[in-house]
Amino acid sequence: MESIKWNGNSLELLDQTKLPLEIEYRKYTSHMEVADAIKNMIVRGAPAIGVAAAFGMVLASKQFSDLSKEEFYKKLQEAGELLKTTRPTAVNLFWAVDRMYKVAKESADETIPEIINMLEAEALNINKEDVELNKSIGRYGLEIVPKSANILTHCNAGTLATAGYGTALGVIRAAHEHKKLKHVYACETRPLLQGARLTAWELSQSNIPVTLITDSMAGYLMGQGKVDMVIVGADRIATNGDTANKIGTYSLAILANYHKIPFYIAAPYSTIDFNISSGEQIVVEERACNEIRYVGGNRIIPDDITVYNPAFDVTPAELITGIITDKGIIVPPFDEGIKKLFL
Amino acid sequence: MESIKWNGNSLELLDQTKLPLEIEYRKYTSHMEVADAIKNMIVRGAPAIGVAAAFGMVLASKQFSDLSKEEFYKKLQEAGELLKTTRPTAVNLFWAVDRMYKVAKESADETIPEIINMLEAEALNINKEDVELNKSIGRYGLEIVPKSANILTHCNAGTLATAGYGTALGVIRAAHEHKKLKHVYACETRPLLQGARLTAWELSQSNIPVTLITDSMAGYLMGQGKVDMVIVGADRIATNGDTANKIGTYSLAILANYHKIPFYIAAPYSTIDFNISSGEQIVVEERACNEIRYVGGNRIIPDDITVYNPAFDVTPAELITGIITDKGIIVPPFDEGIKKLFL
Repeated sequence: MESIKWNGNSLELLDQTKLPLEIEYRKYTSHMEVADAIKNMIVRGAPAIGVAAAFGMVLASKQFSDLSKEEFYKKLQEAGELLKTTRPTAVNLFWAVDRMYKVAKESADETIPEIINMLEAEALNINKEDVELNKSIGRYGLEIVPKSANILTHCNAGTLATAGYGTALGVIRAAHEHKKLKHVYACETRPLLQGARLTAWELSQSNIPVTLITDSMAGYLMGQGKVDMVIVGADRIATNGDTANKIGTYSLAILANYHKIPFYIAAPYSTIDFNISSGEQIVVEERACNEIRYVGGNRIIPDDITVYNPAFDVTPAELITGIITDKGIIVPPFDEGIKKLFL
Repeated sequence: MESIKWNGNSLELLDQTKLPLEIEYRKYTSHMEVADAIKNMIVRGAPAIGVAAAFGMVLASKQFSDLSKEEFYKKLQEAGELLKTTRPTAVNLFWAVDRMYKVAKESADETIPEIINMLEAEALNINKEDVELNKSIGRYGLEIVPKSANILTHCNAGTLATAGYGTALGVIRAAHEHKKLKHVYACETRPLLQGARLTAWELSQSNIPVTLITDSMAGYLMGQGKVDMVIVGADRIATNGDTANKIGTYSLAILANYHKIPFYIAAPYSTIDFNISSGEQIVVEERACNEIRYVGGNRIIPDDITVYNPAFDVTPAELITGIITDKGIIVPPFDEGIKKLFL
């Protein structure tokens, strides 16, 4: 099941707000529509958002093909800025937009149709590269998965969150392929239930043994010795190793720490924000209160009940056992490991 | 809003599965119906279950009024056994049924109509006593609530979980009345959302400032310094202090421990199980998978996704700062404190 399909003139996104009860692709022909789709989480997951934004830039370039070159660049930059405003936490979004704009700028001597071709090739590259990065993460991740492993994960860092294969679920897929996996526990991940609707469903579809729990059950499971390791994805990683990921990740890291269970992040290099040295610099997106007041479109509490809805939290490096990347596994001190592998 | 009303010949229970969107009382005229209501969580909360079961015993006694005394006792005992099978974890249920049966046995010289009168008086006593116990818990709890306190709570240990006032929410109510309370954070408490549907609503109705969060946000809030203390109710307390409470409580205790935030249990003496010396002896109820697959009657995932649904967890004594009871606050070592206050 691909989350993103490119048709040459339009982008198709699998509507992840409706999964798994409805499987529906939506078609987008402008970067404004793609921006809305990212904001409304039709497409979600840091790597997938990056890929969608890259194709959004292609759609923008096609829309501006009749303009003067100066206007073309101005409009393309504005399109990139718009795409960047959709979600503040996932760094892959900024990374992909900047990478696309850089390609356009570096091709300034070419004709506009030629620049558009190069942008399309780059977006397809980002898409293809992401699958390869994930498979590489899976291969490296195998090293730290014990035999007959019971792995707990949060949110969805799988096929649906990426261009394919997945980051945290990429490691789980690789472990399953190599017969090292015993069982996966998926936290349902309120408010939007990505763990229930996407991860438990995605793994079931792949015949990987998975049990769904509510977020509140993770500690109980760990206390019973049912969890050998935790692996989650990431939305942004500071160079000191502090990691932003779906709300609830920080709690899981503390619970793992208390039970002496290894806690791993799995993410491609594009999730590392080389511009920030600490998690304190990460903006945590606050989303609409109705995401909590309603479940699956159905109201559970009245509007006059006050709600707080931060979408992410930041797990400090000291709670992280290792970061599984496409270039290898980084262990503390993370700043040295990140420098060594990527700079 | 009373969760339990006694009409002389029938019991009315506020249907807590429908709150807060629908406010509906249901009428029960037999102990079998009351047993079903407890099982299906029409009434829930350890103290409220105890009160409902006591009235269930009264309904049973009225039903058996025409039997011989020998048959009457046999049937009454069977009714008690049935009521006890409804929920395995909350000890107040067993305590209330046993207390009622003891009253009947001690009145063996009286006529059956007289025994029935004594049972009704005892159930009304348990009901009235519970409100007084809660107010006493509230008064003692005041001692440990700092000025301008931000208190986090889980599930619902309020008016709705008791005959009135509440245990954990009793302390919060007392703190509010004495102007010591700044804010309450209520964890929504998946799967059945008692924190959202009952606690946030109950406190809002009482004009007590409350913000609802998902269970996964508690750690993030603590990390931001927004929580001064955690207070939760209990379903069963072993004499060493180990405490069974709604699933997710154990995780909160670990998170509080990590952030050096005091973690308190609030419960009346009837929640202490003097027969068990450790939480290992507590049976944790496992409930239906559909409680997770559906939210508010609406499906969120297909039936073929495997689900695990333990309804409680046991928080070990070493993670508990103190137990606020109707006779005072018990601090570690809990076995000594419990002996001193109650034996």
